[in-house]
Amino acid sequence: MTDTSPLATPFPTMPLIAGAVPRIARARYKTWDRCDLTFVTLDEGTTVAGVTTQSRCPSPEVEWCRAALPQGHARSLIVNAGNSNAFTGHRGRAAVEAMAKQAAKHLHCQEEQVFLSSTGVIGVPLPIDKAEAGLTAAFTAEPCSWEEAAATIMTTDTFTKGAVATAVVDGKTVTLIGIIKGSGMIAPDMATMLGYIFTDAAVAHDYLQQCLSAANKRTFSCITVDSDTSTSDTVLAFATGKAGNARLTSADDDGADAFAAALEQVCRELSHLVVRDGEGASKFIEVSVTGASSDESAHRIALSIANSPLVKTAIAGEDANWGRVVMAVGKAGEPAERDLLSIRFGETIVAKGGLAVADYDEAPVAQHLKGDEISVGADLGLGKGRATVWTCDLTHGYISINADYRS
Amino acid sequence: MTDTSPLATPFPTMPLIAGAVPRIARARYKTWDRCDLTFVTLDEGTTVAGVTTQSRCPSPEVEWCRAALPQGHARSLIVNAGNSNAFTGHRGRAAVEAMAKQAAKHLHCQEEQVFLSSTGVIGVPLPIDKAEAGLTAAFTAEPCSWEEAAATIMTTDTFTKGAVATAVVDGKTVTLIGIIKGSGMIAPDMATMLGYIFTDAAVAHDYLQQCLSAANKRTFSCITVDSDTSTSDTVLAFATGKAGNARLTSADDDGADAFAAALEQVCRELSHLVVRDGEGASKFIEVSVTGASSDESAHRIALSIANSPLVKTAIAGEDANWGRVVMAVGKAGEPAERDLLSIRFGETIVAKGGLAVADYDEAPVAQHLKGDEISVGADLGLGKGRATVWTCDLTHGYISINADYRS
Repeated sequence: MTDTSPLATPFPTMPLIAGAVPRIARARYKTWDRCDLTFVTLDEGTTVAGVTTQSRCPSPEVEWCRAALPQGHARSLIVNAGNSNAFTGHRGRAAVEAMAKQAAKHLHCQEEQVFLSSTGVIGVPLPIDKAEAGLTAAFTAEPCSWEEAAATIMTTDTFTKGAVATAVVDGKTVTLIGIIKGSGMIAPDMATMLGYIFTDAAVAHDYLQQCLSAANKRTFSCITVDSDTSTSDTVLAFATGKAGNARLTSADDDGADAFAAALEQVCRELSHLVVRDGEGASKFIEVSVTGASSDESAHRIALSIANSPLVKTAIAGEDANWGRVVMAVGKAGEPAERDLLSIRFGETIVAKGGLAVADYDEAPVAQHLKGDEISVGADLGLGKGRATVWTCDLTHGYISINADYRS
Repeated sequence: MTDTSPLATPFPTMPLIAGAVPRIARARYKTWDRCDLTFVTLDEGTTVAGVTTQSRCPSPEVEWCRAALPQGHARSLIVNAGNSNAFTGHRGRAAVEAMAKQAAKHLHCQEEQVFLSSTGVIGVPLPIDKAEAGLTAAFTAEPCSWEEAAATIMTTDTFTKGAVATAVVDGKTVTLIGIIKGSGMIAPDMATMLGYIFTDAAVAHDYLQQCLSAANKRTFSCITVDSDTSTSDTVLAFATGKAGNARLTSADDDGADAFAAALEQVCRELSHLVVRDGEGASKFIEVSVTGASSDESAHRIALSIANSPLVKTAIAGEDANWGRVVMAVGKAGEPAERDLLSIRFGETIVAKGGLAVADYDEAPVAQHLKGDEISVGADLGLGKGRATVWTCDLTHGYISINADYRS
């Protein structure tokens, strides 16, 4: 077991969500003595939205969720940890169908109202007997806390991750909570990792989807640990409707803005927690690009910086090696003019107009790099495009974790 | 100083090239006691071709070479090690102009017949006084061997790198030699690193350019160490014409095929040597993709595999974690069908048709991964597109080298 990330933050105080009850059990997908199966029951009328990986090799769980999302209602969520069930062919699909069938029978619901995820090693079919025994145990288990559920979905994660927000909708206070796992094989351009958001708000599933997709674009899709996009990434949002507000159906509804903002806040906090638990991470890095030719261009340049091993190792070494940021801008394949470019560490502009700022004060830069929250900025000087992404540094810890994971 | 790469190969026996004479000197660009300036004189009539980085933030040396290439003739090559002179604005451009002027005066040639490169830290202007003193010393130095020149252009490289080939053109045997440096900030989609090829063949500069561009596409553009594209990458080929063959002017000429093949062989060997000296490398990895929808698609998928930190760390750990190869195929953004995909390590197919091959023999796979030449294959099962790229594994050595390079 690796040590807890130095960037860990405490799990927040997390309220119950009426209509959503988590339980956990030991399916023993690996030879470990911990709970590894999470089972959440959702009351009738719960709506669901989701975003999934854009990998061309998705897991059967991802395919199941995609097929089930359009009908928009959920009665259950099952999450398996220790085995991703990805790239397992018909045996993997059979395992997913068996679990959905068992849960649907238990809850007297339709199979497509059961949502599933699995996370862990790729290529080993999820053992159906273990899954079924685990589910049977979960059905009769006492309800657990959200923190226990967050612990049960973890794999290489070193701390439990959750976020809470509230919004006033239609005069009622609605609560949103989210839990997430993810530490390696984390890259954007998708809905990333396994994340689950529950709210007691009443929200039509298509509007819930609209809010989640918009939030995803500015949160989960803006983080990267190692540029490697998983086969199993899934974020699902469930709305039980128990808060009693008039159902939100569009952005024009009273309170819709507050709800969307609260959802985005939960998504942002969850996505940052994944970066804070990035494999081997010792620094949390915010990369902001401004002055690009478009927002999309700024996003790609920001990712080029955030994914550069040379930038990430320099920051691990607390080295203000801004030349590597120039390199990463240059290689991004996006419009850039060397002689208009400026680079910032923290609040200090270190290079401007195609060369180093003469005699800039190194002290605040060195001080900033010694901290564990690093801010890197690049201004392209071309237009109004801007984007921010978040990543972590690249350290010996990442190598240690990943050169010996499967064995 | 880091230890020599375990993948190092001995410098080949390298003949003289009539009309091309290398010399070296100490410009002392860093506080080191070694030669760091290389000066090659080229006889009148030498043609030149080149390919340079596609970075949007190129060094002034790269811009100088690009501007000088169209006239097609060269009388000198100057290479500085220890300072890349990139992103140094007007001061960097002034340094390049001063060196070209000094060499042109010495050789009684035009300034645009002087080709220059610099390699090292980004953002520090090359000190003109040191460059001029170094050049003055080089003018009067005794000629050196190509191996000494190869040693003088190195930075974080751990061994000298060179390649030799011959071809029969027009009844005459022509010789090609090449030297190269490069170890980190190595990624394809460009002419990469600093590489220099010299031949006594007589070749028109536009046909030389045609051969070099074609070879580059299959060699330098097919390697990656860390996905980070340098600001200074340059490969130049010089043909002195002293072999006495009838000047090659097009692919239809007698011996043109043999010359092009010999040039590509030198390029391939040089590019592989860079991978063998990849920062922290312990394994040389060939990634072959077949059955893709096009050659370009195969190339992008192969790079997605070769640049994946999770694939590279797995191979460093001698772990046949083929699920990470599946992941890298899936994230490439190229046409792929999970259930048609197969994955190979060495000669053993480990996954096929969307799942693991049942009971494949793990012994030859484990044996293959223990070696230091690793072959990974992915067949997409879609079409006839194919590509091969080369990379190295990702180890603690890379982190150690790069978390503390500038300081």
